[in-house]
Amino acid sequence: MSTREFDVLVIGGGPGGYVAAIRAAQLGYKTACCESEAYADPKGEPRLGGTCLNVGCIPSKALLHTSHLFEEAGHGFADQGIVVGKPRIDVAKMLERKNAIVDQLTGGIKGLFKKNKVTFIAGHGRFVKRDGERWLIKVGEEEVLAGQVVVATGSKPRHLPGIEVDNKTVCDNVGALDLESVPKKLAVIGAGVIGLEMGSVWRRLGAEVTVLEALPDFLGAADVDVGKEALKVFTKQGLDIRMGCKIGEVKKTRSGVSIEYTDKDGKSQKLAADRLVVSVGRVPNTDGLDADRVGLKLDDRGFVEVDEHCASSLPGVWAVGDVVRGPMLAHKAMEEGVMVAERIDGQAGHCNLDTVPWVIYTAPEIAWVGKTEQQLKKDGVKYRAGKIPFAFNGRAMGMAAPEGFAKILADADTDRILGVHIVGANASELIAEAVVAMEFDAAAEDLARICHAHPTMSEVVHEAALAVDKRPLHF
Amino acid sequence: MSTREFDVLVIGGGPGGYVAAIRAAQLGYKTACCESEAYADPKGEPRLGGTCLNVGCIPSKALLHTSHLFEEAGHGFADQGIVVGKPRIDVAKMLERKNAIVDQLTGGIKGLFKKNKVTFIAGHGRFVKRDGERWLIKVGEEEVLAGQVVVATGSKPRHLPGIEVDNKTVCDNVGALDLESVPKKLAVIGAGVIGLEMGSVWRRLGAEVTVLEALPDFLGAADVDVGKEALKVFTKQGLDIRMGCKIGEVKKTRSGVSIEYTDKDGKSQKLAADRLVVSVGRVPNTDGLDADRVGLKLDDRGFVEVDEHCASSLPGVWAVGDVVRGPMLAHKAMEEGVMVAERIDGQAGHCNLDTVPWVIYTAPEIAWVGKTEQQLKKDGVKYRAGKIPFAFNGRAMGMAAPEGFAKILADADTDRILGVHIVGANASELIAEAVVAMEFDAAAEDLARICHAHPTMSEVVHEAALAVDKRPLHF
Repeated sequence: MSTREFDVLVIGGGPGGYVAAIRAAQLGYKTACCESEAYADPKGEPRLGGTCLNVGCIPSKALLHTSHLFEEAGHGFADQGIVVGKPRIDVAKMLERKNAIVDQLTGGIKGLFKKNKVTFIAGHGRFVKRDGERWLIKVGEEEVLAGQVVVATGSKPRHLPGIEVDNKTVCDNVGALDLESVPKKLAVIGAGVIGLEMGSVWRRLGAEVTVLEALPDFLGAADVDVGKEALKVFTKQGLDIRMGCKIGEVKKTRSGVSIEYTDKDGKSQKLAADRLVVSVGRVPNTDGLDADRVGLKLDDRGFVEVDEHCASSLPGVWAVGDVVRGPMLAHKAMEEGVMVAERIDGQAGHCNLDTVPWVIYTAPEIAWVGKTEQQLKKDGVKYRAGKIPFAFNGRAMGMAAPEGFAKILADADTDRILGVHIVGANASELIAEAVVAMEFDAAAEDLARICHAHPTMSEVVHEAALAVDKRPLHF
Repeated sequence: MSTREFDVLVIGGGPGGYVAAIRAAQLGYKTACCESEAYADPKGEPRLGGTCLNVGCIPSKALLHTSHLFEEAGHGFADQGIVVGKPRIDVAKMLERKNAIVDQLTGGIKGLFKKNKVTFIAGHGRFVKRDGERWLIKVGEEEVLAGQVVVATGSKPRHLPGIEVDNKTVCDNVGALDLESVPKKLAVIGAGVIGLEMGSVWRRLGAEVTVLEALPDFLGAADVDVGKEALKVFTKQGLDIRMGCKIGEVKKTRSGVSIEYTDKDGKSQKLAADRLVVSVGRVPNTDGLDADRVGLKLDDRGFVEVDEHCASSLPGVWAVGDVVRGPMLAHKAMEEGVMVAERIDGQAGHCNLDTVPWVIYTAPEIAWVGKTEQQLKKDGVKYRAGKIPFAFNGRAMGMAAPEGFAKILADADTDRILGVHIVGANASELIAEAVVAMEFDAAAEDLARICHAHPTMSEVVHEAALAVDKRPLHF
């Protein structure tokens, strides 16, 4: 078989990879992108879009939307004068819609590849050797020579030792998106983004959900007020969240699964459930990449070592997204993909990790950007805080979504915005103005003086900025 | 009765007025705000919040939310696997919730007045005379002396000659929010914000809605693409929108109302309906202000004449909100209220009318800021446009809201953003980042290089910015 030659080969077709490939091709480079993972493709053909699109962000959002409406129908409609019978969920139909969205979007990326003239190669990419100024990569059975290689192999769910994930009874993110019916009792190990989103979906649809978390603080990476508010709201919604749990033996039983754990007081406990979701984080995926064969350095946690511009230890080898340091977020991966393509082109591409927004798509949603209050305290930064609840916001009331708040942290001396933290409906969209403001080094006073449409939830961000200077108008 | 003395008297308790009063009081001025309108107050006591809060923005958003969910239940649920019986609307219950929100918010402003030490005076304010360095104002039967007077008397619905509004059969915004049942046939005269929002509410609940508009172009003030897309979507939803109609005689009939009009082809037509909403714009309200008595200048359309800082022709007299030039929007009024209070304090308060966002809360929502494409053409400004539909956005698909687009217009030479136009779910919130960007004189390239959370609708704004430079990643 002849060896194909490219200027750029991207290994991995997730958000970091496919975006890097498209941008490189836009800049005139002969570009290929390889992917081997077929996910649920009916023909077993490799699919673009990575975890995010196939078994992550996108399908979860479809289920979150449906389950949110289901809960509204059962619990929110009556107060508004909408009379319906007791709603019933047709899980197969719900999953069918979810799968149709995934199919359309993964297919869409193939279309984008065609439009931008990126060659898609089905197959697993692995390093073979340096060949002059290029890299020889084996993709499946094929050999590829490329001057520049972008490793975008993503991450995989961390599994717990001794707990086999079959994605039927014991699930990671993949199985949690595809339960064939609503379990009566669902156990979730890990109160992170995936655990909370999936726990919320199945709780809304009728499952009794218990979440076991090893750490003592709920959403410890989020601002301390965010964690407190979220725990309060989720508990009120009916999620049984237990912190400080040490997981012991997990056994499959005839009807489901049995989980032994030690609770925060050191007492032995046992939890029986029909299904278990294990969501204890994700680890970088370099399986079968043969990184060591060419001396591509990984750090002790398995991430590909890169500098601030995602250049690896090897000439012409870059790595982006979940397989490198920084938040495991699709939009961070995409920005790195763009940056690397532009760096290959000799441009000054850059990705500012300090302004990458975080989102959890529960209801209320949670979103933040920049520093948390506890980080500022730890770093000894003097700050002023403005925090305004959504409870008195006309739009939030109209939407029957009064939970949460917006909180702005600004430097006490310069007033520069250091962090913005939102718990509330549409927080995922509200955070955009905060990111823009921070990218322009805005002061809280700037946001306070910018007109916000009435009535919108964004007015609460505006009020939080006014509150930094202790002059809110509506609180 | 003794004459009460204040540093600042605000005439009118709507968004412009109550905000001006709160800000003036925050700055240390002895401030009063008077209001005479009781709206639907059960005791007939004057209520704060103005049209916006009592019979405008806020109650309409409550009805829009409920009616949107009602429509989802009837038409969107099945596709998602949510099984409910045919939904029925309990109009009384729906209105009760709406009224409870209004009650809470108007009461809330009284609370804000207390907190900020603003004196509320129930009564209609009218100018009497200049008294030394102060103004003598009659509020109801009481006399008030104030060094600074802020006129915030708002606007009132424009009525058509010969069509008596009884707010039962023939309604303006007030009655349209309070129909006691869903009319079988609803006619709307005027395809503006109120006509479209109210027409949407009652159509979703089951009314057959016909909208008659005098102008030839739909939403002529909006960007040309916005008008086109909105007309297409609303028509598909079932709104029967007829442009270029000249309204003739309108008669009440036994069962409702009969409307004669000449259609765009010059043919005489007759429309029978159970209820009619007249929404042909609003006019400034200076009723009973006795402006002429003190020589306060009004322009030929009845607006109080003011300079860019809302100072009137008289010393110490200011005017803000709907009663002065500029868009009749609550958030514009509030910004002017803040500006005037700060100007009274000798500060440099300013209100940039060029970055006031516009919103129409239909589904999809419509929001824009800055110049439209037709304005730029007319002004001979060279521009580049980036326009991206929501149809391929994962979040929009997840929310079953694929309609609409985001469009960015940027100066062809400097790349400065000149206008942002959005039709889509949550457009009202998405516009916030565009306003912030424009306040910072951002280039489209700036937005293109700022990280946007995935998956969100705001990614389409990001893509539109990339599309200005013809390098969208996902289209």
